[in-house]
Amino acid sequence: MLRNVRILVSYDGSRFFGWQRQEGFWSVQEAIEEALLGLTGETVTVRGSGRTDAGVHALGQVANFHLDTDLTDNRLWHGLNGHLGRCGAVIRALQTCEGNFHAQRSACGKRYAYVIETARFQSPFTEDRAHFVRGDLNIGPMREAAAHFVGEHDFSCLVTTGSERASNVRRIFGVHLVERRTGIAIVVGGNGFLYNMVRTLAGTLIDVGLRRRRPESIPALLIGRERSAAGETGPAGGLYMISVQYPGGIDWVFRRDRTGEPI
Amino acid sequence: MLRNVRILVSYDGSRFFGWQRQEGFWSVQEAIEEALLGLTGETVTVRGSGRTDAGVHALGQVANFHLDTDLTDNRLWHGLNGHLGRCGAVIRALQTCEGNFHAQRSACGKRYAYVIETARFQSPFTEDRAHFVRGDLNIGPMREAAAHFVGEHDFSCLVTTGSERASNVRRIFGVHLVERRTGIAIVVGGNGFLYNMVRTLAGTLIDVGLRRRRPESIPALLIGRERSAAGETGPAGGLYMISVQYPGGIDWVFRRDRTGEPI
Repeated sequence: MLRNVRILVSYDGSRFFGWQRQEGFWSVQEAIEEALLGLTGETVTVRGSGRTDAGVHALGQVANFHLDTDLTDNRLWHGLNGHLGRCGAVIRALQTCEGNFHAQRSACGKRYAYVIETARFQSPFTEDRAHFVRGDLNIGPMREAAAHFVGEHDFSCLVTTGSERASNVRRIFGVHLVERRTGIAIVVGGNGFLYNMVRTLAGTLIDVGLRRRRPESIPALLIGRERSAAGETGPAGGLYMISVQYPGGIDWVFRRDRTGEPI
Repeated sequence: MLRNVRILVSYDGSRFFGWQRQEGFWSVQEAIEEALLGLTGETVTVRGSGRTDAGVHALGQVANFHLDTDLTDNRLWHGLNGHLGRCGAVIRALQTCEGNFHAQRSACGKRYAYVIETARFQSPFTEDRAHFVRGDLNIGPMREAAAHFVGEHDFSCLVTTGSERASNVRRIFGVHLVERRTGIAIVVGGNGFLYNMVRTLAGTLIDVGLRRRRPESIPALLIGRERSAAGETGPAGGLYMISVQYPGGIDWVFRRDRTGEPI
């Protein structure tokens, strides 16, 4: 009988063309499916909680798949990481779960971090892992601006055009700006995110931090629903999918590994 | 008239075959010399405070060179980083200094960090940037062992054989073990270091942390002066040259950039 298995995945986005399998492009999904095929001989489809674009990192992506193997969870976990090798993705936790768990449809929230490095020159250690901004960011006005995004809004102003959705209304639970030694991380939680939404939110807050845009302008930006009125879409390398929330939570505690968190 | 210029350099060691110029191998020294040639048209020799091996990182390597240009320090600094591009090395500070400053001979101390990641699986973000050790390290015994290395000793037991030195006596000022979220960093300061000395010190302390070696065995190890009695040489990717000390110190304060510090 097929069992339903869920995994917690960390990956360095610079080594993949995004999460989703695409003909001719190496993706995280394909890497995991190939590893499962090698380990169990089974051809499975790994479904993620959502796609991430090429270059976007993950510390806590969640995915699930159905397979037939009678390997224990522990062997499946270790075997899967063994097959993945040093490909840039690692399974931080794995557990057989209830049959109706669906990584995408069951999710009730997601958290992302957008990491900005501010310095005179970019560190050789953060290439493709942070968005480098020359000059100082004023965090006070950025926090003021961030607060305006919290709540339920139509986020059309932050969506890259061309994406088709029934509705651009989403709820942002919180936007927190964390001061770091070499910059700022913008941590955003919400019930769902539109295409490029976090990266454009970050670009808009950077404008505020550089005093090119006033915090008080944000409500009008949201009401206007014009993508062209918002800031630039920040580069993919600054974005990290931190975690996915599910009703009741997932208790990874016995299996979860510390692997992964550089930020 | 030639001026003497000193620089503070940060580099990702995984992108170079070490600091020192060698025919047929790309080195940090060659990268900086090429950038200076491109910027000023002058062929200069850049002297570092010491070599670092292939794969070893630096956050605060110091070097100096003599050149003739009348570019201001600030323009030289920015121009040099512009020519270096995203090569994996960045100049964090630059200043014209006294004519007799010599990055190697004037140095009176150096500090290194050896970064160990302990987890069940290595993070995709620390490949080549930390030494991955499976299993937990017992930091108490490691600290006990580390204390035995402090002071003036003949460190023959930690030197890779084949290196020729008049004396293997060095003074270690301190060995500090810093607990990090995903492992331990061993920070070592001393008046000079022998070939592979810090990496072998780290390998020996890891043995202690894994309870394969007792802290009380260190004094006999030092007295025995047998390399084969010490631990393995830890991989290059875990090692970071943190800083170089000079009598009276160097006041980089007006020019120094935050660029570089991932650890």
